[in-house]
Amino acid sequence: MNAEKIPDIIIGRLPVYLRALQSLANKGIQNTSSQELGEIVGISAAQIRKDISQFGEFGKQGTGYSIPFLVERLRDILKVDRGWEVIIIGMGDMGHALARYNGFTNRGFQISMIFDNDPQKIGQKAGDFEILDTAGIAEKIKQHKIKIAMLTVPAPAAQEMADQLVKAGIKAILNYAPTSLNVPDGVHVQYIDPVTHLQRMTYYLD
Amino acid sequence: MNAEKIPDIIIGRLPVYLRALQSLANKGIQNTSSQELGEIVGISAAQIRKDISQFGEFGKQGTGYSIPFLVERLRDILKVDRGWEVIIIGMGDMGHALARYNGFTNRGFQISMIFDNDPQKIGQKAGDFEILDTAGIAEKIKQHKIKIAMLTVPAPAAQEMADQLVKAGIKAILNYAPTSLNVPDGVHVQYIDPVTHLQRMTYYLD
Repeated sequence: MNAEKIPDIIIGRLPVYLRALQSLANKGIQNTSSQELGEIVGISAAQIRKDISQFGEFGKQGTGYSIPFLVERLRDILKVDRGWEVIIIGMGDMGHALARYNGFTNRGFQISMIFDNDPQKIGQKAGDFEILDTAGIAEKIKQHKIKIAMLTVPAPAAQEMADQLVKAGIKAILNYAPTSLNVPDGVHVQYIDPVTHLQRMTYYLD
Repeated sequence: MNAEKIPDIIIGRLPVYLRALQSLANKGIQNTSSQELGEIVGISAAQIRKDISQFGEFGKQGTGYSIPFLVERLRDILKVDRGWEVIIIGMGDMGHALARYNGFTNRGFQISMIFDNDPQKIGQKAGDFEILDTAGIAEKIKQHKIKIAMLTVPAPAAQEMADQLVKAGIKAILNYAPTSLNVPDGVHVQYIDPVTHLQRMTYYLD
């Protein structure tokens, strides 16, 4: 299978399937069907079967999917069977909340360093981490071969910081600043902006 | 125009266009093109023209879009030209970060009440708000005719709280708990789970 061949919209649904499957596995459930999975995630069974079949044969007609096997394959496909180190830049409320969030580790990620440029914050602790000076961020990214960053700086500072991150070798940015980022080909950006999600829903409200 | 007729994937892109247009407007820029907008948001100019044309004629061939006009129309289409009241349930780190976030107001939303079920937290302040007891949440939702909730409770508590919210009249839930929610038709759910976004990107990394 080749990254070019699978539409990104399908890739985007795999983590949602994985999360639901792991939740079933945590309840001790061993098998599921595309129907059951579909009800959990709110996606049609046909779509789920089609998405998963892109990566080979998983389920057997009539017996459904083996959850441990499908979890292992999805973790392998999404490359979260390793523990990716992630850095956080921007130690405001959101940065602090992420530094203290305990939901990364068992899903393929671990925070390894956190940064801010405020002299009042540098050297302080957030969660288990000491806040480091962004002045030294490029060197630290290179030294630790970090590929993934979560960006929680104010919107006006986001593009300049993203440029620095990319130059230092970051390949994936999860951007919490409510602004679009320009990055070169081969660098991936995902956005977390609660307002865009709220606005997508108000369209349907009276 | 009818909600049934426009695919949800298009609705989902409109808030991103709106954010970019408002950012241009804040710089005093009056006109833009689908090309310029496309470069900002990372979506093709053709896709943008097609999406926007679903809602009528906006741009003129050669002169592009009037930003103030398009902003006004998008705010009208997405119904964010009113100030929606939003409640937050769950005053952990994420709930606190959202209660103190100042990016809602000028984009169509205002936090109106915040809730937790922890006696240690009830009555305390978060941002400008006093934390209220979830025991009284249904009554408060009905009284203030609240339609939108942000759910930042732990995953195991999310479905039960969502059921309560829906029963009280909530029509849109922004779910920060890393779990899928089952809601009846006519209730909308959007998910914010940083791990799914990270996993979507690691697929492409070496």
